[in-house]
Amino acid sequence: MLRLRKPYLLYLGDAQMPTDAKTACGLRDWCPADVVGEWSLPSCALSVGVPRRSPEEAAALGAGSLVIGIASVGGTLPPQWLPDLHRAIDAGLDIVSGMHTRLTSFPELVEASSARGVSLQDVRHSDRRFPAGTGRKRSGLRVATVGTDCALGKKYTALALTRELTALGAKATFRATGQTGIMIAGEGIAIDAVVADFIAGAAEVLSPANDADHWDVIEGQGALFHPAYAGVTLGLLHGSQPDAFVLCHDPSRVTIEMFPDATIPTLPDAIAQYTTAARVTNRAARCVGVSINSSSLSDDAWAAYARETAAELGVPVCDPMRGGVAPIAEALLEIGGRS
Amino acid sequence: MLRLRKPYLLYLGDAQMPTDAKTACGLRDWCPADVVGEWSLPSCALSVGVPRRSPEEAAALGAGSLVIGIASVGGTLPPQWLPDLHRAIDAGLDIVSGMHTRLTSFPELVEASSARGVSLQDVRHSDRRFPAGTGRKRSGLRVATVGTDCALGKKYTALALTRELTALGAKATFRATGQTGIMIAGEGIAIDAVVADFIAGAAEVLSPANDADHWDVIEGQGALFHPAYAGVTLGLLHGSQPDAFVLCHDPSRVTIEMFPDATIPTLPDAIAQYTTAARVTNRAARCVGVSINSSSLSDDAWAAYARETAAELGVPVCDPMRGGVAPIAEALLEIGGRS
Repeated sequence: MLRLRKPYLLYLGDAQMPTDAKTACGLRDWCPADVVGEWSLPSCALSVGVPRRSPEEAAALGAGSLVIGIASVGGTLPPQWLPDLHRAIDAGLDIVSGMHTRLTSFPELVEASSARGVSLQDVRHSDRRFPAGTGRKRSGLRVATVGTDCALGKKYTALALTRELTALGAKATFRATGQTGIMIAGEGIAIDAVVADFIAGAAEVLSPANDADHWDVIEGQGALFHPAYAGVTLGLLHGSQPDAFVLCHDPSRVTIEMFPDATIPTLPDAIAQYTTAARVTNRAARCVGVSINSSSLSDDAWAAYARETAAELGVPVCDPMRGGVAPIAEALLEIGGRS
Repeated sequence: MLRLRKPYLLYLGDAQMPTDAKTACGLRDWCPADVVGEWSLPSCALSVGVPRRSPEEAAALGAGSLVIGIASVGGTLPPQWLPDLHRAIDAGLDIVSGMHTRLTSFPELVEASSARGVSLQDVRHSDRRFPAGTGRKRSGLRVATVGTDCALGKKYTALALTRELTALGAKATFRATGQTGIMIAGEGIAIDAVVADFIAGAAEVLSPANDADHWDVIEGQGALFHPAYAGVTLGLLHGSQPDAFVLCHDPSRVTIEMFPDATIPTLPDAIAQYTTAARVTNRAARCVGVSINSSSLSDDAWAAYARETAAELGVPVCDPMRGGVAPIAEALLEIGGRS
């Protein structure tokens, strides 16, 4: 599993738009204790509201890594960022990137990091080899977030559930499968970068045997109904062997984003399909809640939608951004109590 | 897509057991016109019944590649084979291998092949990058073989269907997704070696747009119900966008091979699940037949099983080894005629 050196200095480069800084904001919100500050070029137009620190100041405060916290155009490294990355390396920081283009494809960074004894961490990629899935039951409890589409709150829901379970006194660990999640957790597996034959096996490695009353909260990827990424979704689900899953949905979407011919099924149908799929490796798997991205709904519309959907499906319906996920966490603890 | 240089000289090394030579037998049976002969060490105890030819004789007959046609212990290259491989390289042949260990991991082979201007082809691996799936409909007709488990006849069924469609005067191409299939076809994609995010995209590349009345017959992999490999199965199915699928099954199996906790669903349930999955990218997808590996049944038992199963499912039930797949090919031509 990929492991990162915390705490972090967040790098904002020359970002101009707040939407460019999604990764930095995610880290600030979900692991604030692991963030010592932010750094950027003089031309940068934004801040994520943490103290400004140079790489040397961050290193003196104990920082382990400079994390590229912004999206770059085309997923590659703008040359104007290079002096700051070299400065961070010289200060003894690892560099962490979720870009498509690997840090390790820049010989000057490889040379500098090797000379200084620090690491270049490309969290979008995976060079590790994993075993094939075994399907063998592991101790501990597991809940997976799954979705009716990509990019509608599976990571956010998993983080909110982990926080809620912990607040309720349960043992819980967020298990990251995507780049931002891995940065937040400080470890994880970019599951979509694994060789196809080993998706389920990598998911087994991600969520190893644990205490009988411990919950792994596994960040889902893609959707079973997604024309491009469903293979990742299914392999991750099988390897996770979840006792429970939470279905994430955005009611404003009718078709898969960018795939206008791919219709999103109804919630009961989606739950039935995920249940069938999950039961291949865990016959007790069941839906314990629905997590809604309700940003398209007014307060009244959301209240009515949540009430009607919960009555129809017989499980709690929550929006982690609008009231939280406590009812779903409580449903999980009931399962845990019965096990 | 990987492309191999035919015709082939089959290499049997020092094989002792006929079961070791499955790959060589598959090539002899399915592309006999592409096989110029066999070669082996003096200690080899078997022949697959084609003329014995040295690498130099094979090259003189126009051979393009020496194909390692036997399984090796541990999937690696026994040192006693090396002199023959060097001899083949010196004779101007490419070396084709389906072993786990790559030919390219042997520096002496890399050096010799590079000096002679021939290729080392590791068909189990994939270094190519593929685009993500688009889900866009392509012209031409497609049928996929899918299974209730691994290793029960998906490749064999696809090859038999391709042969039968061609015999009936239809345009048809076998599309290989596994190592032996790729050797038989001379091209294809080892789909389980593709990075997870690109399984569906690779399947789209494998089966490009074609004439409206042309059938691609796509070799399936794994099973939707397989705890380790279902992600590959689903991504391949989505990218293939099949108009029709043939379900392959071995009635002697109750659970997935090597996974005693994973129950194989009933045939109607398996067909329903594959239909739901396939309709994500092709709403017309339907089951057109069931291909049975009936080796565990007596002649009478097979006749009764085929009759009863066909009546239950409403589609032809065939065993390609026992009567052939003509009724399934005819069902495909009906679909083609309607399109």
